[in-house]
Amino acid sequence: MKKIAILGSTGSIGINTLKVIESLGDDYKVVGLAARENIGLIIKQIKKFHPLAVALTDEKAAAKLKKQMAGTKVEIYSGLEGVKKVATLPEADIVVSAMVGAAGLIPTLEAIRHNKTIALANKEVLVMAGEIIIREAKARKVAILPVDSEHSAIFQCLKNENIDSVNKLILTASGGPFYKWSSRKLKTVTVSQALNHPTWNMGRKITVDSATLLNKGFEIIEAHHLFGIEVKRIEVLIHPQSTVHSMVEFVDGSVLAQLGVTDMRLPIQYALSYPERQERIVRRLSFAKISGLNFFRPDFEKFPLLKIACQTAGIGGTLPAVLNAADETAVESFLAGEIKFMDIYKLIRRVLDRHKLIKNPSLEEILDADRWARVITKEEACSQR
Amino acid sequence: MKKIAILGSTGSIGINTLKVIESLGDDYKVVGLAARENIGLIIKQIKKFHPLAVALTDEKAAAKLKKQMAGTKVEIYSGLEGVKKVATLPEADIVVSAMVGAAGLIPTLEAIRHNKTIALANKEVLVMAGEIIIREAKARKVAILPVDSEHSAIFQCLKNENIDSVNKLILTASGGPFYKWSSRKLKTVTVSQALNHPTWNMGRKITVDSATLLNKGFEIIEAHHLFGIEVKRIEVLIHPQSTVHSMVEFVDGSVLAQLGVTDMRLPIQYALSYPERQERIVRRLSFAKISGLNFFRPDFEKFPLLKIACQTAGIGGTLPAVLNAADETAVESFLAGEIKFMDIYKLIRRVLDRHKLIKNPSLEEILDADRWARVITKEEACSQR
Repeated sequence: MKKIAILGSTGSIGINTLKVIESLGDDYKVVGLAARENIGLIIKQIKKFHPLAVALTDEKAAAKLKKQMAGTKVEIYSGLEGVKKVATLPEADIVVSAMVGAAGLIPTLEAIRHNKTIALANKEVLVMAGEIIIREAKARKVAILPVDSEHSAIFQCLKNENIDSVNKLILTASGGPFYKWSSRKLKTVTVSQALNHPTWNMGRKITVDSATLLNKGFEIIEAHHLFGIEVKRIEVLIHPQSTVHSMVEFVDGSVLAQLGVTDMRLPIQYALSYPERQERIVRRLSFAKISGLNFFRPDFEKFPLLKIACQTAGIGGTLPAVLNAADETAVESFLAGEIKFMDIYKLIRRVLDRHKLIKNPSLEEILDADRWARVITKEEACSQR
Repeated sequence: MKKIAILGSTGSIGINTLKVIESLGDDYKVVGLAARENIGLIIKQIKKFHPLAVALTDEKAAAKLKKQMAGTKVEIYSGLEGVKKVATLPEADIVVSAMVGAAGLIPTLEAIRHNKTIALANKEVLVMAGEIIIREAKARKVAILPVDSEHSAIFQCLKNENIDSVNKLILTASGGPFYKWSSRKLKTVTVSQALNHPTWNMGRKITVDSATLLNKGFEIIEAHHLFGIEVKRIEVLIHPQSTVHSMVEFVDGSVLAQLGVTDMRLPIQYALSYPERQERIVRRLSFAKISGLNFFRPDFEKFPLLKIACQTAGIGGTLPAVLNAADETAVESFLAGEIKFMDIYKLIRRVLDRHKLIKNPSLEEILDADRWARVITKEEACSQR
């Protein structure tokens, strides 16, 4: 039996993870849940999955939940310390790391230090602190199994291949809603247009990141750390159908690709069942309905954040953490209607320019850079208005 | 160092195998060559690759070659016994089985019995005697590595996957030159039209088999034996671009595909270098040049030989050997201008109908069925004219 703790159980990945666990049956058991503050949903999840422990990062919400759960067996924890409790539960074999943004970093690192297998959906963990995370995981022989569809695809293509046989990784990108738009038209993008993703149904922040292509940039950084491949060996191809989830080109000229429907439950299930495969919860791909699979090179001029991500990845140090924090803050401003779509790039550019790089940073230095970048991004956003 | 014997060195696969070995460099050495009668080419090959032993099945050609090679170190053998000598050379690690048609069966079986790794390009070996071949290979733990691009693709996709995790194999087919033609127009096909394959450059017989789609039928039988998968779990999809060389759909709904340029040297190199991959001799796939990958279900009514192959595979026994022999003979007649394109099907149909099935046949019974079918196909061809 596999025992699972989910960090971020009320988010999009968390909800889908619970659906997968339900469909997988008795060999998979939920032992811990953590979320921010969505009490209504977490109570439903507690009643259905009977975890041993639950944490809410919001202290008030946690106190409220504790009252409501009084008299039951479930332990309720609060704050970052509470999430760490759930991430290190002695009963858990696998920790699903799906708390959005920087919030997932410390609990994930704690889980690794407690030898939990990590099913990683929170790409910010690797974007911010990839070197530290991978170093700790290697030292403890802890497996980090990707839940992102692209990285799951590459992980499947690399199964038992020698990493020296890889020529390059090819991350596919739907291109988001705007890959055909002109630079001029991109200046007019509204929030609702940016949230209207053509092929994937995801959270709001990641959907905007898909529209700017910065999400793909983060995935380059993630792939670089996960698979130990230089950034220059990672290529992005726009593939509007999102049927090929990513590919690996080997030195002999052979390419392996993973294909499937656009349903996050597929990579989630693969990570949970790995190294086995279990009966599907998702639909099968219908090849008769595929009308033509296309691949294009992305336009770095129109989507400058993709270029910035590559440069940032190459420089490393605290810079990727700054990129991540600046983006989180800038996207929040965009979603709140405070700045325009193309201002996301301009803001991030200015924050990166102002940052004093620290090479080989400690976790504390990374978290400092993260906090600094959030403050500076807000400051720049205000001066812009 | 890997030492290689090539059965069928003067054919299309044999010539490409030698190009691959040349490109792979000093870790790969040719120790044996066998061919039918092409003295001019085999002498060039001997001078370039310095094998220890060479066999020609044609006795006269072998005698002539022996004279010409007098005073050199190379041993010259003749006839089926000679090919068996080359197939069982004590110095050989790998035997490339690329003699067209039934001629390759006995030497390949001998090679297995002498514990040689088999790189199998001759699909008739498995079509005719798949059960015997696989049983002998399993008993001796001999690896059979596919050289067909489709089976190499599936082999790569299955690497270290559990066979119980497979839902189905998907063999892609270019569809040949006629997949869009009407049944009426198919009656008018000329030899030069049938030899004009849209994506692959191959030998004449296999090119005609690609036009009738029977080649894909043979590949179903081959895949059935190679991977131990029921025929009903093997699907064919027309994929006119021949970029995806085949795919595997797993129980979880995930699909792995292998892609590459249409160059036989890619699967040949993979079989020789397996389990490693070596630097490419072939071009890289250029995704920017891919204008749209399509997949269609084949039309079994227009291409009845594909349907017949599936039925034959399901019945087994001596029937697949009869199908293979009848096809070889019928295609020869077509290439000689003696019968029409659609007569290939009619002839084969009649020969199959006349055959008295033997279940679980011995090798001798299979070879008898093969000889019988050739005679009967010629008889039927004459009565048709």
